[in-house]
Amino acid sequence: MKKILITGFEPFGGAAINPALEAVKLLDGVVLNNGEIVICQVPVTRFKAIDAVIEAIKHHQPDYVITVGQAGGRTAITPERVAINIDDFRIADNEGNQPIDQPIVVDGPDGYFSTLPIKAMTQALQQAGIPCQVSNTAGTFVCNHLFYGVQHYLRDTAIGHGFIHIPLLPEQAALTDQPSMSLAMIAEGLKVAAQAVIDNEQDIQLIGGTIC
Amino acid sequence: MKKILITGFEPFGGAAINPALEAVKLLDGVVLNNGEIVICQVPVTRFKAIDAVIEAIKHHQPDYVITVGQAGGRTAITPERVAINIDDFRIADNEGNQPIDQPIVVDGPDGYFSTLPIKAMTQALQQAGIPCQVSNTAGTFVCNHLFYGVQHYLRDTAIGHGFIHIPLLPEQAALTDQPSMSLAMIAEGLKVAAQAVIDNEQDIQLIGGTIC
Amino acid sequence: MKKILITGFEPFGGAAINPALEAVKLLDGVVLNNGEIVICQVPVTRFKAIDAVIEAIKHHQPDYVITVGQAGGRTAITPERVAINIDDFRIADNEGNQPIDQPIVVDGPDGYFSTLPIKAMTQALQQAGIPCQVSNTAGTFVCNHLFYGVQHYLRDTAIGHGFIHIPLLPEQAALTDQPSMSLAMIAEGLKVAAQAVIDNEQDIQLIGGTIC
Amino acid sequence: MKKILITGFEPFGGAAINPALEAVKLLDGVVLNNGEIVICQVPVTRFKAIDAVIEAIKHHQPDYVITVGQAGGRTAITPERVAINIDDFRIADNEGNQPIDQPIVVDGPDGYFSTLPIKAMTQALQQAGIPCQVSNTAGTFVCNHLFYGVQHYLRDTAIGHGFIHIPLLPEQAALTDQPSMSLAMIAEGLKVAAQAVIDNEQDIQLIGGTIC
Repeated sequence: MKKILITGFEPFGGAAINPALEAVKLLDGVVLNNGEIVICQVPVTRFKAIDAVIEAIKHHQPDYVITVGQAGGRTAITPERVAINIDDFRIADNEGNQPIDQPIVVDGPDGYFSTLPIKAMTQALQQAGIPCQVSNTAGTFVCNHLFYGVQHYLRDTAIGHGFIHIPLLPEQAALTDQPSMSLAMIAEGLKVAAQAVIDNEQDIQLIGGTIC
Repeated sequence: MKKILITGFEPFGGAAINPALEAVKLLDGVVLNNGEIVICQVPVTRFKAIDAVIEAIKHHQPDYVITVGQAGGRTAITPERVAINIDDFRIADNEGNQPIDQPIVVDGPDGYFSTLPIKAMTQALQQAGIPCQVSNTAGTFVCNHLFYGVQHYLRDTAIGHGFIHIPLLPEQAALTDQPSMSLAMIAEGLKVAAQAVIDNEQDIQLIGGTIC
Repeated sequence: MKKILITGFEPFGGAAINPALEAVKLLDGVVLNNGEIVICQVPVTRFKAIDAVIEAIKHHQPDYVITVGQAGGRTAITPERVAINIDDFRIADNEGNQPIDQPIVVDGPDGYFSTLPIKAMTQALQQAGIPCQVSNTAGTFVCNHLFYGVQHYLRDTAIGHGFIHIPLLPEQAALTDQPSMSLAMIAEGLKVAAQAVIDNEQDIQLIGGTIC
Repeated sequence: MKKILITGFEPFGGAAINPALEAVKLLDGVVLNNGEIVICQVPVTRFKAIDAVIEAIKHHQPDYVITVGQAGGRTAITPERVAINIDDFRIADNEGNQPIDQPIVVDGPDGYFSTLPIKAMTQALQQAGIPCQVSNTAGTFVCNHLFYGVQHYLRDTAIGHGFIHIPLLPEQAALTDQPSMSLAMIAEGLKVAAQAVIDNEQDIQLIGGTIC
């Protein structure tokens, strides 16, 4: 029986809701084949985001961690491949921090790959009829910040961790031409991804790269 | 009590399903405030598409007609503003016709505006949290063909008619980076649009144009 | 010897330059095979734009007219297929007019097709290595307004007329992620288009439509 | 007097030309303020690409290296921020290699940041009226492969190195709706970037990140 911690960010940038948090709330206590989901809520604030997830890891002692954030403009659920050691915030976080080209961890390595099976997750979602693509950049805002910080914290452990970006909700996109995905499908997608993590100790071989 | 006919196209271009037909099936017999919905299925074939809807109009004697088609690449439900008198098919229709720059109605006018309240529909969907935008082109394939042909047939009647394009379903977009919308939301959006048609004899004033 | 009038809009929306005007200035007096180019400058103002071009037509007595405007977001030079009888301005024009869903010509027809050979122009530019695509919507701002108004004015004459949208200049797009095209290529493209107009009394058969 | 090596890839994926190579050829021997440019041609082949640039570095003994590649779909010249230790080729390279999720350097670090001043380059190009944006992913094909491999080779040296992606040429995009940039502007942009490298030992502080 594996325990998988899935975390969701609070709203930011003036928004009233964050689909990551809404989806994660629906997954609290959900039972998987050979697994169960626990959750935590994450502030959109530099360093405090990392601290909140570390605290939840200490509390829940999970086997795997999936951190989740909103990606306006994306059409699909996108497991991220790599976190990079840079904060270059286009907007301020929820406490007004707006670093430019600052390291997240001083003297940390430039990048960390996801230690979750991103191709297996992608295939499982696609087979379930849920739009899913590997992403090769998590940006340079709090999402990447959290991805990197948690990966750094877990670097010498057996706990697998990765970040997944999700689209806007339809109500967030209603007056715009941005793509969206229903809350039910986002939650189902994260559940399918969690099951794929449990089922795939090794990732599968599946073309998923980009030319540029 | 108004009767509103909503029509959906069959699959085309090698696809197994068409979200327009799937959504319309869910709306058969649905009761609105002061209205009810009837439906019909439309072949993706030049001229036969128009004939099928004309036959359904004769049979059902509706007060309003909404023709519906799939728009791969669009993020929102898009009420169309104008039909144009041209067939310029990028791919063949379901019976192999691929006209280039042929008129739909010889000596017909170049364009017909929708006679449905496109701005009121757009606002109603947006207020319901459903992504919606006015579109200024229905393309030059069978969707525009049907829009034009039915508008021409109804030109001297009191029956209002317009075309609505809808996004792909998630399962159609699962392996791609194309935007999509859940079937439940598409069906709900068409129902909200039908109610807005019944509720707005005159369209509302709402900015909805494009620069280009 | 044919005379072809090419018109360019002034800057609008707070911009300092308009690539249409800059390109057209480069074409004044240019000699083609069996033709020559004359130009005029057009205000981005409702009705005054149409009046300015009508005056230039009366003055120059051209055989053909190409009206040209800027299309932010487009990657290619795009000959427009159809003008529609609606003003639905997303922003105000240069004199503060912002009509919503007002006709350009009261009781005018809903649409007018371009009377220039849009496919021949498209093919000529593509063969010259210049990105070019037929467009099926000229929007609902002053570009479409002018396209419709001039087409209406010329409706019972032998003078061919059409509208061409062009991309932003690189310096306009430098800080954005919008596509652009060099001024030299835009001007060359308009010259190639003008030559194609002179060379093709009848348009060619070339697939150029869209599904939606 | 600084020496800067700029490298360009050969055509790939069935294309007849590569704008990177065409632009780089125009820069051979160009003199900058306090600098000069030397060039080399790079095969689009796994490992051989890296070997070719290492050989050119040994031969030319440059102070800086800029590797350059084509990025279909991009609107701007994009200095890359980070290379990642993965080959995940969506198409085969020019010798038929198509690795999936293979490391470029076994036991190499997951990522390497560019050691060129990417923000200073970006600002210099924008101020010259040339569309330019920092990119946070160089993809997972031969471009990223070369970026990573050269960065790894130079990791303990004083030689700065970074990768720049450039748009398609207009003639490559002529029949498509992909964005493009003139060869003259691409070459000028690379020259401006090279000058910015020489002029900025330290990078400047400029917002250039992305939310996701």
